[in-house]
Amino acid sequence: MVAFNIIMHSGNARAIVHEAMDAMREGNFEEADAKLQEAEDALVEAHKSQTDLLQEFARGTDILIQIIMVHAQDHLMTTMTLKEIALELKEVYKKINALEAK
Amino acid sequence: MVAFNIIMHSGNARAIVHEAMDAMREGNFEEADAKLQEAEDALVEAHKSQTDLLQEFARGTDILIQIIMVHAQDHLMTTMTLKEIALELKEVYKKINALEAK
Amino acid sequence: MVAFNIIMHSGNARAIVHEAMDAMREGNFEEADAKLQEAEDALVEAHKSQTDLLQEFARGTDILIQIIMVHAQDHLMTTMTLKEIALELKEVYKKINALEAK
Repeated sequence: MVAFNIIMHSGNARAIVHEAMDAMREGNFEEADAKLQEAEDALVEAHKSQTDLLQEFARGTDILIQIIMVHAQDHLMTTMTLKEIALELKEVYKKINALEAK
Repeated sequence: MVAFNIIMHSGNARAIVHEAMDAMREGNFEEADAKLQEAEDALVEAHKSQTDLLQEFARGTDILIQIIMVHAQDHLMTTMTLKEIALELKEVYKKINALEAK
Repeated sequence: MVAFNIIMHSGNARAIVHEAMDAMREGNFEEADAKLQEAEDALVEAHKSQTDLLQEFARGTDILIQIIMVHAQDHLMTTMTLKEIALELKEVYKKINALEAK
C-alpha cells in the first residue's frame, strides 16, 4: 500500500535527519552532509509515491482518502520541512563552530 | 469529537513550545526544559487520540475523513516537528550562551 | 479550486521564507524582516481559504476531501511552521552576529 511506503521512507528520512543534526552539533559537517543527502534520497522515494497519487488524481482517477493516507502525507511533508531546517541549522552550527575556534 | 481534542491539545503544546523558546533565548534552560516537558505531555494526549483512530482503521473500521480531521492531524504533526526543532535550538542557544560568557 | 489557491500561496510563502533565511544568514536583518512580512501576507491569503472551508464544514456543509486538499493543507501548515522557526532563527543569527562583531 502506498501510504505505508510513504510512512516507511519518511520515517527513515526523519531518523537520518536527526543523525545529521547530531553530527553538525559535534562539528562533523562532512558527516552531516552525507546524512542529509541520505535523508534526501529517502524523501525522494516517499515524494515520488505522493506525486504518483496526485498525478493519478489529476488524470481523473478517484482516490479514496483514508486516515492512513492523511497520516502518510503529514509524515512526508513535516519531514521535508525538518530537513530544510536542518540545512539551515548546519549554517548556524558552522558559524558557532568558527566562533568557538577563535 | 476526536478532531477537536487533537486540535486543543496540539494548540496548547504549540503555545508552550513557544514559551520554551522564549525561555531558552533568555538563557533560562531549566525553565525551557520544564516547558518542553509540559508540551510533550500535551502532545502525548493528542498523539494517543490519533493512534486510537489509526488502530481502529487497522482493525477494519471505516473512518470518515472530514476536513476538520485532516486539519487536526496537521496541527499535531507540525507541532511535534516544532518541538523536535526546539530541542535542537536549545543546544544552539546553550552554545551561544557559553560563547557570550567567554 | 480552493486547494490550488492554498498551494500557490503557501508555495510563494515558502520560497520567501527561504529568502528571509538567506538574508538573516548574511546579517541583513531588515531585509529578513521585510521578507518574513511578505511571507506572512501570502500565508494569510492561504489561511483564509482554509478557514473558509473549515467554517463551511462547521455550518454543516459536506466537504469532499480529495488528495489535493490534504496536500494543500499540509503545504499551508508546514510553511506556517517553517515561518515560526525562521522568526526564531532570526534571533539566533542576531546573537551570532553580535558575537562575531566582538
